[in-house]
Amino acid sequence: MPKLLICSRQSDEYQQLIAAANLTGLEIVTAPDPDCELIFGEPNLIRDVLVQLPRLKWVQASWAGVEPLLDPALRHDYILTNARGVFGGLMSEFVFGYLLLHERKILQRLEAQKLSKWDATLPGSLRGKTIGLLGVGSIGAELAKTSRFFGMKVYGFTRASETCAQVDRYFHGAASAQEQADTLQSFAKELDYLVSVLPNTAETRKIISAEVLAALPRQALFINVGRGSAVDESALIKALETGALAGAVLDVFEQEPLPAAHPLWKTPNTFITSHTSAPSFPADLAAVFIENYRLFAAGQAPKYQVDFERGY
Amino acid sequence: MPKLLICSRQSDEYQQLIAAANLTGLEIVTAPDPDCELIFGEPNLIRDVLVQLPRLKWVQASWAGVEPLLDPALRHDYILTNARGVFGGLMSEFVFGYLLLHERKILQRLEAQKLSKWDATLPGSLRGKTIGLLGVGSIGAELAKTSRFFGMKVYGFTRASETCAQVDRYFHGAASAQEQADTLQSFAKELDYLVSVLPNTAETRKIISAEVLAALPRQALFINVGRGSAVDESALIKALETGALAGAVLDVFEQEPLPAAHPLWKTPNTFITSHTSAPSFPADLAAVFIENYRLFAAGQAPKYQVDFERGY
Repeated sequence: MPKLLICSRQSDEYQQLIAAANLTGLEIVTAPDPDCELIFGEPNLIRDVLVQLPRLKWVQASWAGVEPLLDPALRHDYILTNARGVFGGLMSEFVFGYLLLHERKILQRLEAQKLSKWDATLPGSLRGKTIGLLGVGSIGAELAKTSRFFGMKVYGFTRASETCAQVDRYFHGAASAQEQADTLQSFAKELDYLVSVLPNTAETRKIISAEVLAALPRQALFINVGRGSAVDESALIKALETGALAGAVLDVFEQEPLPAAHPLWKTPNTFITSHTSAPSFPADLAAVFIENYRLFAAGQAPKYQVDFERGY
Repeated sequence: MPKLLICSRQSDEYQQLIAAANLTGLEIVTAPDPDCELIFGEPNLIRDVLVQLPRLKWVQASWAGVEPLLDPALRHDYILTNARGVFGGLMSEFVFGYLLLHERKILQRLEAQKLSKWDATLPGSLRGKTIGLLGVGSIGAELAKTSRFFGMKVYGFTRASETCAQVDRYFHGAASAQEQADTLQSFAKELDYLVSVLPNTAETRKIISAEVLAALPRQALFINVGRGSAVDESALIKALETGALAGAVLDVFEQEPLPAAHPLWKTPNTFITSHTSAPSFPADLAAVFIENYRLFAAGQAPKYQVDFERGY
């Protein structure tokens, strides 16, 4: 009978949700026990108990990003799966909330309202605009679907294969650094909106460089819902301060929480959203574990396996 | 050879767009001429030239609302068609821009940002919420489609037939005033968002009454992208001031422009958007005329005919 350790700040809620699924032969514990073969929960908490579980076989993370478990100093002798398919819809609401805030001039209308001023300035529209997705996994695919729904063109930059039918034009990462930089700039220069959903890996580090930012048109918006490490934050601040970029919506940062003294808080045309773009709703994440446990219990490979080397 | 009078503040742009379609046998003029059989343009301008065109057969309005032409004192001996199918997408961007502003707590996060404060408060989500559409014509159908896309339940209130497959539950206007009031309250009481797309007619006058507003849950938002006459504005102000309603987004008003001294400008949790929810883009509206002219020239009935009695 496999033992599952739930390792989460919401252990009680997860325990109830998973117990309610009556999974055959599963025993749930919430404190480390050397017999545990399975863990479900938050990567930062799981990291600390890995050494206590000699029989560990499989870890299901409740996050999409699993950086805390990738450290080469940690054991990697188990199957690690992350959470996918649950954040796309929420990310989509986040991204389109801010795109519409911008296009519909919502803040400008609020300023006019404070002056009791009828402001019939025409709004912009999403229709016909071009969005560029840096990363086209399950979240990128959901953003592509929403973009298409609103009549937009979708460009996708990925190192993976072209699996998303909603992407109108693909750009591919390349082995040579120079070639990749050129491709990224070609990708950036036609965009109205650039959205990064990139994870934190060695390959994505500061991939959104001064050059990529400079290639974006002046009216473009940059939105980061991936990881802060993918952006050269100093270059981004400079682009926003000089008006080389129309605005930025940043949910993630090199350092989180963003320190109170950090210049990004006061950078013009910048929205800081404190890593809230896709909150984890326990019912959704318990469902990921439950579905994957059924595969595991049937002797099949669980879905969403992470490659420790690649990092996602 | 039929003569078309273009009657618009954007006559030059429309003339170019329509001329570019090379419509067989159509002569375009921009000043009233007694030989004109057709008019294209804005209802408030068309109203003033009706008496000068004895041979008038068909008027294509560039607006969805045609109130200026419904006045019983005016002639109604011609076919009047309005603009449909072009505003739904823009209305949808407008409505979802404000729904996401609300759910994603965008203004609250901006306030936190001014204080350099990391605000990890969880956002809300559209998914699972219930939207009620007052009016399910072409614009309502587009809103229904977008609502479903975001995983919402859709209720529709209409006097017409149930033509929109994206509506989960229909409520119908009734012949008796009391019965209709009861139905409207049943409709309102389960909603998270109430959106009116109703036109200005005798039947819709103040249909969003104090009773309907009271039936809405306290957390509900009211959005008006139809006509201001459909709302009891005093009752709405009271509901917002007492917190009986969470908020309102008002694009249309009893009197437009909204007078500077009007209390709605300062009513709490109210967004005033100055009749900009669906701006008229000439290329879209010229396309409606061109398509309809082809039907007219072929001896067929043009689409989107307005019933002068019913008012839409």
